[in-house]
Amino acid sequence: MKMSARNSLKGMVVSVEKGEITASVKIKIESPEVITAIISKEAVEDLDIKEGDELNAVIKSTEVMVIKE
Amino acid sequence: MKMSARNSLKGMVVSVEKGEITASVKIKIESPEVITAIISKEAVEDLDIKEGDELNAVIKSTEVMVIKE
Amino acid sequence: MKMSARNSLKGMVVSVEKGEITASVKIKIESPEVITAIISKEAVEDLDIKEGDELNAVIKSTEVMVIKE
Amino acid sequence: MKMSARNSLKGMVVSVEKGEITASVKIKIESPEVITAIISKEAVEDLDIKEGDELNAVIKSTEVMVIKE
Amino acid sequence: MKMSARNSLKGMVVSVEKGEITASVKIKIESPEVITAIISKEAVEDLDIKEGDELNAVIKSTEVMVIKE
Amino acid sequence: MKMSARNSLKGMVVSVEKGEITASVKIKIESPEVITAIISKEAVEDLDIKEGDELNAVIKSTEVMVIKE
Repeated sequence: MKMSARNSLKGMVVSVEKGEITASVKIKIESPEVITAIISKEAVEDLDIKEGDELNAVIKSTEVMVIKE
Repeated sequence: MKMSARNSLKGMVVSVEKGEITASVKIKIESPEVITAIISKEAVEDLDIKEGDELNAVIKSTEVMVIKE
Repeated sequence: MKMSARNSLKGMVVSVEKGEITASVKIKIESPEVITAIISKEAVEDLDIKEGDELNAVIKSTEVMVIKE
Repeated sequence: MKMSARNSLKGMVVSVEKGEITASVKIKIESPEVITAIISKEAVEDLDIKEGDELNAVIKSTEVMVIKE
Repeated sequence: MKMSARNSLKGMVVSVEKGEITASVKIKIESPEVITAIISKEAVEDLDIKEGDELNAVIKSTEVMVIKE
Repeated sequence: MKMSARNSLKGMVVSVEKGEITASVKIKIESPEVITAIISKEAVEDLDIKEGDELNAVIKSTEVMVIKE
């Protein structure tokens, strides 16, 4: 099975909190990973993003899915 | 400055590829991180997700933003 | 009224479950539909996606909006 | 392998169009499916959504992932 | 026609730029609007968000749809 | 600090409603803003979107993050 999503980060569940409709799951990612972001070309030029830059990859928690083997 | 997004992963840019409208940026994340996923309660019960489980956090690259200090 | 979203699947509500902030709505889609996915070119090449392939379109429930005429 | 995403629609690829960074994949969904939408409770009450209603599930193409067995 | 999306901002197109797969559309929003954000409760408490606070609503451009009457 | 997200709308919190996992925050945006939408080229051509058109930018509330200085 292969997925189109470019980011699949292996980790261990450290907490699960259930609400009525949604739930919050926290996952500890141990190993180094390469994250792919698709952003606007305008942003790359505006932030002058280039190889070697230190930056943060930011992801809203509602955008994270999980897969369990 | 504080953000509501729960996931902010520090890393280094390893590649930048520009198209006409969008661009793909790959970021090497070195240090361990805790990722928060907000998913449906139904999914937590269907996948029987609990503390200690090994699983993958999956994120589509179009859902990843970047921040440069 | 026309929308930029390429996927608008006609169906009938089969369940509604309300929480405090969010709600889960299940919609039975009867008729065949064509779904459009915009993914990374890298993924198309990695998964060798081509006409005639059998695959699944996967959508997180928080990404589904509804429209009522 | 199980996924937290509630919507996984089986279909056949009918077209693939590649750009520099992104690609558009169209998938013909044949069989009836049940789609889950997580929306705000406010919207459910505002649109007076209840069992039996006819409505459309709307999904932006950038929010659709694909999985190939 | 009513939509579940809580944010529908009226404006005028000020630029359109087309790529092969995606396009960037800039829309000038004139009138004051109320934006609804659904974020994690954890974030509301972490950022101590309360009525009267000055803050920015941040939205990735790939998450914005358009509707034309 | 610079963000890749193209839409950062300054405003004032007018209401906060907390659930168990998620919360709804409403923000009054006063000043005019320019919103950037990245949609499919197909949609731009299908809706014949051009400069000067009146249209609505539509954003699901789960796609809105907030930042507090």
